[in-house]
Parts: sequence; structure tokens; C-alpha cells
Amino acid sequence: MADKLNVITIVGSLRAASYNAALARQLPKWAPAGMSISSAPSWAGFPIYNADDQAKGFPADVEAFADAVHKADGVIFVTPEYNYGIPGGLKNAIDWVSRLKDQPFKDKPVAIQSATGGPVGGARMQYHLRQAMVFLNAFTFNTPEIFVGLAHTKFDEKLEFKDEAGIKFITQQLAVFEGFIRKVGGK
Amino acid sequence: MADKLNVITIVGSLRAASYNAALARQLPKWAPAGMSISSAPSWAGFPIYNADDQAKGFPADVEAFADAVHKADGVIFVTPEYNYGIPGGLKNAIDWVSRLKDQPFKDKPVAIQSATGGPVGGARMQYHLRQAMVFLNAFTFNTPEIFVGLAHTKFDEKLEFKDEAGIKFITQQLAVFEGFIRKVGGK
Amino acid sequence: MADKLNVITIVGSLRAASYNAALARQLPKWAPAGMSISSAPSWAGFPIYNADDQAKGFPADVEAFADAVHKADGVIFVTPEYNYGIPGGLKNAIDWVSRLKDQPFKDKPVAIQSATGGPVGGARMQYHLRQAMVFLNAFTFNTPEIFVGLAHTKFDEKLEFKDEAGIKFITQQLAVFEGFIRKVGGK
Amino acid sequence: MADKLNVITIVGSLRAASYNAALARQLPKWAPAGMSISSAPSWAGFPIYNADDQAKGFPADVEAFADAVHKADGVIFVTPEYNYGIPGGLKNAIDWVSRLKDQPFKDKPVAIQSATGGPVGGARMQYHLRQAMVFLNAFTFNTPEIFVGLAHTKFDEKLEFKDEAGIKFITQQLAVFEGFIRKVGGK
Repeated sequence: MADKLNVITIVGSLRAASYNAALARQLPKWAPAGMSISSAPSWAGFPIYNADDQAKGFPADVEAFADAVHKADGVIFVTPEYNYGIPGGLKNAIDWVSRLKDQPFKDKPVAIQSATGGPVGGARMQYHLRQAMVFLNAFTFNTPEIFVGLAHTKFDEKLEFKDEAGIKFITQQLAVFEGFIRKVGGK
Repeated sequence: MADKLNVITIVGSLRAASYNAALARQLPKWAPAGMSISSAPSWAGFPIYNADDQAKGFPADVEAFADAVHKADGVIFVTPEYNYGIPGGLKNAIDWVSRLKDQPFKDKPVAIQSATGGPVGGARMQYHLRQAMVFLNAFTFNTPEIFVGLAHTKFDEKLEFKDEAGIKFITQQLAVFEGFIRKVGGK
Repeated sequence: MADKLNVITIVGSLRAASYNAALARQLPKWAPAGMSISSAPSWAGFPIYNADDQAKGFPADVEAFADAVHKADGVIFVTPEYNYGIPGGLKNAIDWVSRLKDQPFKDKPVAIQSATGGPVGGARMQYHLRQAMVFLNAFTFNTPEIFVGLAHTKFDEKLEFKDEAGIKFITQQLAVFEGFIRKVGGK
Repeated sequence: MADKLNVITIVGSLRAASYNAALARQLPKWAPAGMSISSAPSWAGFPIYNADDQAKGFPADVEAFADAVHKADGVIFVTPEYNYGIPGGLKNAIDWVSRLKDQPFKDKPVAIQSATGGPVGGARMQYHLRQAMVFLNAFTFNTPEIFVGLAHTKFDEKLEFKDEAGIKFITQQLAVFEGFIRKVGGK
């Protein structure tokens, strides 16, 4: 087996007490031995995309975020669903880096997780995110998919994810994602 | 017939020379006699949505934008497609106003137009926008749909839209949209 | 108030013990006083669509099904999700009637319900069905949406739907759908 | 390099003069040297899916179709769009084989092409088909995507595809798809 894989998480919510951010922080506990998981740099400071601004140069934050995606062996989006779609802020981050000459999602192994308060768990959003990744030519991982519905019942007061079934699925996704990265990424 | 309808356009691009902004500006030329069309206030200054910031109060820009949607008899989105989806900035604007206690898209008649450089003309994005409008419980107008593909061939150097077939479709959409607003909006 | 509304159900599964068929049969119990609900004729005998066959004439079953949709004040699809989409048989039924010169979904008020074994309850399918209805220019009802997930836990051995929360949502959907039909259908 | 790849086409239309069937027949002309392309067995005789029928055994046609997919190194769907979605007949074929214990799309490299009379060229349908392939855990190829819009202007009276730009894109897709199959299929 090759080196330990470097996987980064991109979180779709900026809220301090975000369930998705909390979930992303805890992923290392459930990662297989061959995978390390860390956070991508924040996109919180990205301006709203405007092609006229881009013409003056990319913000340093955008370059740093894209650079982290470039260097990663794989990316895991962990994000809520807003209005049945991708949070505008997260989509704005994707829009910015997509304009780089060497856009970083090309051929990148990508997995998706979502936590929401409702029962559907973010499914509507995940297929929109997959569609964006078609254009960006990522290798988007299929199943198992992770939909954490009724999130408020599955995290404790310290924002620890306590759902046994969910932990099992996530552990399984990360294990299968490792094999996927090694196959499609040639690692 | 009731009063002249007040329809506003929401543009999905911030670029000064945006084809979509140009198209939106020209819509009054093709509107039926019973409809006036003007621009919604800009969402360019909205911060990236963060629920912690919302807890401190809604920005004045968000309130002004929502207020214009509330007062409108109908809304026309005129927007590009970014990465096969809704531009992040536009989605961020929708996300902000969706959190208002009295979110303004409820029961609002909504039509969509898109202009893109590619041949598909924004179709991928339009169904994502429709999906957001399901959650927000708008009345989203169906057909004729407006997809302006290969936009660079259809606007002149002054950004005047010159495509005869496109103008015909847009004129038709606006006319049918008027009837739709009067029916579903009870105007 | 006008006459009692004539609403028909179109079921997406042919299985005798289908949860969706069972749910459709029970809808009259939860309908408002102003709405009667009955079954559309079956599409089980439709051939697989082939334009060459259509050129020889529409099957009588297709005409009967379309006629029932034409005469209805509203339609409720009650359907499972197959492979994250519309069951092929149901889509085939829609495809057939869509080719009629006077296709019956035009301006028709349409609502959607789905029951599935998984937790997501058919959401992925519902947005595909909505997209078909955009082309067919139906008035597709928005919210409340009905997703019956984990269906095997919510029906008893006689296929009676026993989920209190679900019954409440369905009752609410039918009540709001009545008002929707009266508004957009001018009833 | 390994052996010549065995790629099969699955056509979404049953019409004898189908543009999509015609396109599928001509693909061998534009295939790279390392790829042979032939037709999957027809799904025209599949009954409409009914789980009660499945319980009595799978039709021989379904088994033959699934077997061909199993044996193929890759699959190319070439299909029209019906009502903004997957043709019901094609979806029915997918639904049938998805119920096999060893469903054949698992880990299968899949590409998509579509030809339609309208300008959008089938894009709406392709993302629905991609979503089905997520569930079936195929490796769905991303770009270049093939959308043949305004098909009636691009085929001659013998149904030969004559669009230079389209041929170039298809040739490119097939070449890149070969590399994709070799990578994800380990060929």
C-alpha cells in the first residue's frame, strides 16, 4: 500500500455550532488507518464572485483554498442543505476556484456527507453538488451515501455525533472511499 | 383588468458587462402593456450567510431586497449558470431572505430566464432554481422557458440583444407570465 | 364554494401489496369535504412507448387514462422511487399521454406523494417528476410535500397506514391542495 | 496496453428511424483503436416492471441484457429525452436489471450521449440518468459530454450523422472514455 492518504473536509456552514462542522471535526475518529483527515482552509472570507473582480486577480484566500484541494488526495464535503440546494456560500467558494486556470477539482476524488434538521438529510442538495462536480470533472464517490437527518437528535450537547447507525455508515464510507481514491487517483 | 403589474428582475451576475444584466435591462421593451418591469435592489453587498450573523439581525440590504420582492406582483430571475448550477452569490441572496420570518417568495409568481456562452443556455441551473422555489413555495412559471445559448453571438457590442427568435420567445413568455400572475396572484 | 372536486390518484407501482397503492386507496379518509378521490384507470397494460406504434394509433388504454386525467380537477401521484428516479412504468405512462395532441397534464393541478422503504422517502424521485411536469405545463403543488420513509414500519399487516404524523401531513396536504385547485383551476 | 475494450451501446428509443439508434450504430467509426463498440441486446420486449412478476423469475430478455452489461468493459447510453427525463422504456429496462442479485451496473464505466430535436440536446435527461447510476454504483464518465441538439439538421436522409463539430466531440469522448475505462476498470 502507498502512503497515508491526505483527505480534507470542506464544510458548507459557517455557524460556530454547526452540526456539519462538528461532524467534519470528528471524522478522523472513524477514518481507516490509511487516511488522515484535516480541514480545508476556510472560504468564509471569499467575496461574492464577480468576474470583474477576478480580472484584477484572485484573492489570496481563494488561492489558499484551491491549493489545499490540489494537494489533497481526496475531498469530503460536509454540508447542510439550504433551500433544497447547495448553501450559497459554499457554491460561491466552488465558483471562485472553478475559474482558476488549473481548477483543483479536476480528477479529484470527492465524497459527500450532509446533516440537516429535517428527515431527508440533505439528499436534494447532494445531487446538485454532484452535478457541479460533473462540470469540474471530479471523481465523485457513489455509495454508501451519508445523509444525517434529524441532526438535533443525533448530536449531544457537546456536539459529539452519537448515532450508532450513522457512525457505522460513515466508517464504512470512509473505508470504501480510501479504496476509491487509491483506484481512481492511482495512489 | 386590474392595475398594471409590478414585476421585478433579479440578476444572477455582478459583472458590469453581464449578458444577463443586459437582458434584464431590456425586458421592458418586450413587456405587455399590463406589466411594468424594474430591477430589484442589488444583492451585491450581502455578506456570505452565517446563522450566527443572522442572530444579530438582518443586514439592511437583505431587508430592502426582501421588501422589493414582497411588493412585487411577480419576479423574473435572469441569471447565468455557474458550474452547472445557481451562481453562489444569487443562491446566497435567496438563502438570506429565506430566513426572514415572512420570507418573500411565498406564493410569489416567478419566471426564469438565463443566458450563457454554451449551447445549453442555462437549463441545468434552471431546474435547481425551481427546486429552491418549491421549498419557498413560490408559483414558478413553466413554459415557454427562456434559454439564451451562445450569448456572445446574440448581443451586439452595446449589449443589445439582437436575436429575433429569442426576442419572440421572451415576448411570448412575458405575455403568458402576465396571465399567470393574474391567475395565481389574483390580480 | 363550487362543486366537489374530482381528484384522481395515479399509482407508480403495480405490485399487489404496494405501499403506495395502499396509501392511494386510503386517501379518501383524509380528504377535505370538498374533494372526492378515486383511482385513475391502470397504465399496467400500456406497451413500452415506440413512436412507430404511436403512428398506428394510440392504444385504448392510453386514451382512457388520458381521458380520466382530462376530466379530473386534480391529480395526485402516489409512487415509489426506483433507482433514485421515476419508476419506468409510470414514466412510460406519462410519455404515452404526453404525445396526445391534447396532452392532459396541461394546466392540471398535480400533487405528489411517495412511500419508500428507505429513510429519504422518495425525495429524489419527486423532483424528477416535477421536472417532467414543467414540460407538460402542469400546476405542480409545492408544500407540504409527502415523503413516507421507512414505509414497512408505518403500514400494518392489512396495509393500513398507521403513522400519526404522516396522516397529519397528508390531511394537511389534501386540504391545502383543495385551495390550490380552486385557485389555479378556477374551480 | 491490455486487450481491446468491449463497449456496448444501450439505445433509449425504439423507433426504427431513431436518431439515437442511428448515432449508436455509427459510433464504431469514431472509436479509438483500443475499443470495439457493439449493440446491447434489445430491451424492447421487457414487460413493464412489476415486483410480483419478478417473484416468478426474471424474463430471459432481462437476463440476456444484464449479461451483456456484465461482460462489457464499458457502456454508452445513447438516448433521447422524453418529457425532460429518461424515456420510460429505458428506465424500465434499468429498473428490471437493478433487481438482479448481481446488478450489472455496479462498478461499470458508463458514458452518455443524447440526441434531441430541441436545442438543449438532452441535458435535462442526462443528469437524471446520472442520478440513477449513483444508486447503481456505476463509474459515470464526466466530460466531454455529448448533447446533439437540433438533431434533424445534423443527420442526412440516410441517417448518417454529418455534424463536423459533433463528430469531433464524440471522437474525443470515446478516446477519453477509453482511458477512463482502463483506469477505473483496471483494464
